Amino acid sequence: MKETIQQEFLSEILVEILGALDRKNLEAVSEKLKRLHEADIALILESLPADDRSVVFDLVPAEMHGAILAEVSDGVRPSLVEELEPDELRQAVESMDMDDLADLVGELPDEVAKDLLDTMDAQDRARLEEALSYEEETAGGLMEPVTVTLRPHLSVATVLRYARRRGLPDRTDKLFVVDEQGILKGSLRLSYLVSSPEDATVEKIMSTKPRTILVSTPQDEVARLFERYDLISAAVVDTNGKLLGRITIDDVVDIIRDEGEQHMMNMAGLSEDEDLFGPVTKTSRDRSLWLIFNLVAAFFASWVIGLFEARIEKLVALAVLLPVVASLAGNVGNQALTVVIRGLATGQISSGNRGDLFRKELMVGLTNGLMFAVLVGGVVFMWFNNWLLGFVIALAVALNLLTAAGLGSTIPLILKRFGVDPPLAGSVLLTATMDMLGYFVFLGLASIILF
Amino acid sequence: MKETIQQEFLSEILVEILGALDRKNLEAVSEKLKRLHEADIALILESLPADDRSVVFDLVPAEMHGAILAEVSDGVRPSLVEELEPDELRQAVESMDMDDLADLVGELPDEVAKDLLDTMDAQDRARLEEALSYEEETAGGLMEPVTVTLRPHLSVATVLRYARRRGLPDRTDKLFVVDEQGILKGSLRLSYLVSSPEDATVEKIMSTKPRTILVSTPQDEVARLFERYDLISAAVVDTNGKLLGRITIDDVVDIIRDEGEQHMMNMAGLSEDEDLFGPVTKTSRDRSLWLIFNLVAAFFASWVIGLFEARIEKLVALAVLLPVVASLAGNVGNQALTVVIRGLATGQISSGNRGDLFRKELMVGLTNGLMFAVLVGGVVFMWFNNWLLGFVIALAVALNLLTAAGLGSTIPLILKRFGVDPPLAGSVLLTATMDMLGYFVFLGLASIILF
Repeated sequence: MKETIQQEFLSEILVEILGALDRKNLEAVSEKLKRLHEADIALILESLPADDRSVVFDLVPAEMHGAILAEVSDGVRPSLVEELEPDELRQAVESMDMDDLADLVGELPDEVAKDLLDTMDAQDRARLEEALSYEEETAGGLMEPVTVTLRPHLSVATVLRYARRRGLPDRTDKLFVVDEQGILKGSLRLSYLVSSPEDATVEKIMSTKPRTILVSTPQDEVARLFERYDLISAAVVDTNGKLLGRITIDDVVDIIRDEGEQHMMNMAGLSEDEDLFGPVTKTSRDRSLWLIFNLVAAFFASWVIGLFEARIEKLVALAVLLPVVASLAGNVGNQALTVVIRGLATGQISSGNRGDLFRKELMVGLTNGLMFAVLVGGVVFMWFNNWLLGFVIALAVALNLLTAAGLGSTIPLILKRFGVDPPLAGSVLLTATMDMLGYFVFLGLASIILF
Repeated sequence: MKETIQQEFLSEILVEILGALDRKNLEAVSEKLKRLHEADIALILESLPADDRSVVFDLVPAEMHGAILAEVSDGVRPSLVEELEPDELRQAVESMDMDDLADLVGELPDEVAKDLLDTMDAQDRARLEEALSYEEETAGGLMEPVTVTLRPHLSVATVLRYARRRGLPDRTDKLFVVDEQGILKGSLRLSYLVSSPEDATVEKIMSTKPRTILVSTPQDEVARLFERYDLISAAVVDTNGKLLGRITIDDVVDIIRDEGEQHMMNMAGLSEDEDLFGPVTKTSRDRSLWLIFNLVAAFFASWVIGLFEARIEKLVALAVLLPVVASLAGNVGNQALTVVIRGLATGQISSGNRGDLFRKELMVGLTNGLMFAVLVGGVVFMWFNNWLLGFVIALAVALNLLTAAGLGSTIPLILKRFGVDPPLAGSVLLTATMDMLGYFVFLGLASIILF
């Protein structure tokens, strides 16, 4: 087993590798890589500028390719696969778990995938084809085949004898018990197995209500089940209760990490797969779509301001105060939006409490609306020495903050209803509506009251 | 074992409970709760409006209090603890794990905590005091005591005999091997134990380089180690290699989830502990600090616009276009900021590649800057039929987007250097500087070129 490496040392190793690359000392790079765990090499590859990345991947011993491909992030994997010759790719996939392999094959160009399937032996191919037949982001796509199952009538002594002869798969915390039709009957933790008398039967010591996951369960739901019930592994079954495979916590951990990051990335209009050192043209293109949506929204906001051109000409202070109007409403709306997006992700928000949540967010918006109305009104009065202008902006702030809280807490729920991902579309939609509305309320009130 | 419940059913149960509460049918609520897992009750409590929450918590059987307190989020726990009488609290903590208990006691008012410690027996108190002596957000604060250790010379048969007599702790995937001084010598997976011959010694079959975690390791680093090396449990040691405890994956999963959420929440100026149904006054107050910072920034932006009052009076189109200038720069900056914050969290960014990353983000900013300069310039020319105005805004967009990319990718690194949490302060700082700069560049260029 290779050493556990903490972050700071990994950073040092990265600096050393970059130094050795600069000096063209490939030998030294190669030596360093040999002593690293595949997961560490994966992180280092992700941290390298694109040119260096392919050089370093070439220096990695071939037998580590498979494990590294399984470890790197989805955004980086394709660029590494491209580096491999067909032969190397074939060798790399030999050591991969079925679930990782299915993910990889799903990403390959059709032709390469077909070639790869053709070279596999019949049993592996059948297994892989089965793995590929499940939807990628479901329990079916996450599971791996169960290679050892028990029958209810076996004794502990027999099970131990079997284990000594054949060994047990990695990361086994419990064994699954099935009947002749393969229907799941129970599960047996290894810690119970070793603490039970040799003559006890499996049936007697197994848990008869194992936690099972239906094969069609979406992966974020799988993650929540593992989190909520503190699972280490779980059986995946079909609707008849037939055991199809198992999911282990290490695969779920990656989903949990990805999900958290995904929401943050999506709220800024980024893909969670964005490669830190992807090509500039691809990155610019990927990010620009979001910018275009926001630009269109901004032009609409401009159009609203344009409706009041004549007023602004007479009182430029109105133009001067536009950022204050936009900033407060935008931030209040964004806070409500984020709270609701998080609540949807954790499962705390459902049809039962939506109404209570909406009322609570409105109250928060109203409270802060009144507080900031007084604050902003006071500052504007002192700045422009115009109490009527102070009154107008105070009124606008109070109204806008209330609206922002309402919109921010409703938009994610509406988007979800229509099957649109709330983090991705939510903030554009909120900014667009809130800016237009915010400027309209402020300039409209000013038109009525001041002129 | 209680049933695994998927999200949709949990939502239904929540609706049923809210209905029963409305009809004051507490009996029915009580019946439903009895059939639920503690983790499910915790989620339901988090999903309930504050008043209903205390009613429902009162209906939960007393023996489940401890497990529920361990499961609920940090934002909700204090309100539940307040509901308990001293006696109930004492009973609740009896069933809690040491690490959960230490967290809870750390949050209690000093007096309550002292009373609680006084009622514990000497051994438990000593253990708890030890747990409390470690920093909360480190490996020491996460670990639990190891109650079963092995000696190197034992045979497999002896270990099995011991296990059969005394049982093994929950969630044991491996046993730790120590010498007489308690120094960690190795670890033995249960799956190896059951597949080894009875006469083999522990020494011969154990892994001599177990993954260890230093007691002072920060918890986010612990999470990354578990993720990177696919660990299920790990030994916690001091600098002499003495075994102090173990950390299991179920506690780490919660940290990973919290960390991802935390970044998203912090970027909107929210605390990751915000309670979905916390009191309105507390929620408003917690959120308003962030709003005040942003308001100050907005007033500075207003001040910048004020510098150009005379120009805007002559050409109101300048005021009309302010949202376009602010929106594009803000979004481009926010994308760079988010990418860097994610990279820091995953450990992909370090001193070795900061320069490369900065250059890449500048190139992305430049590429999009040029593209959007042409787009915005064209639209503005057509809208106002003024090619010089189109030219001015195009130039401003190009400059601003380049600056925004530079600032967005630098600010998190500077904040980190000074020990400030990048997600929390990053977006305020970016918006503040970018708005001021963006308006100044646009209106300044307009002053020079148009007048």
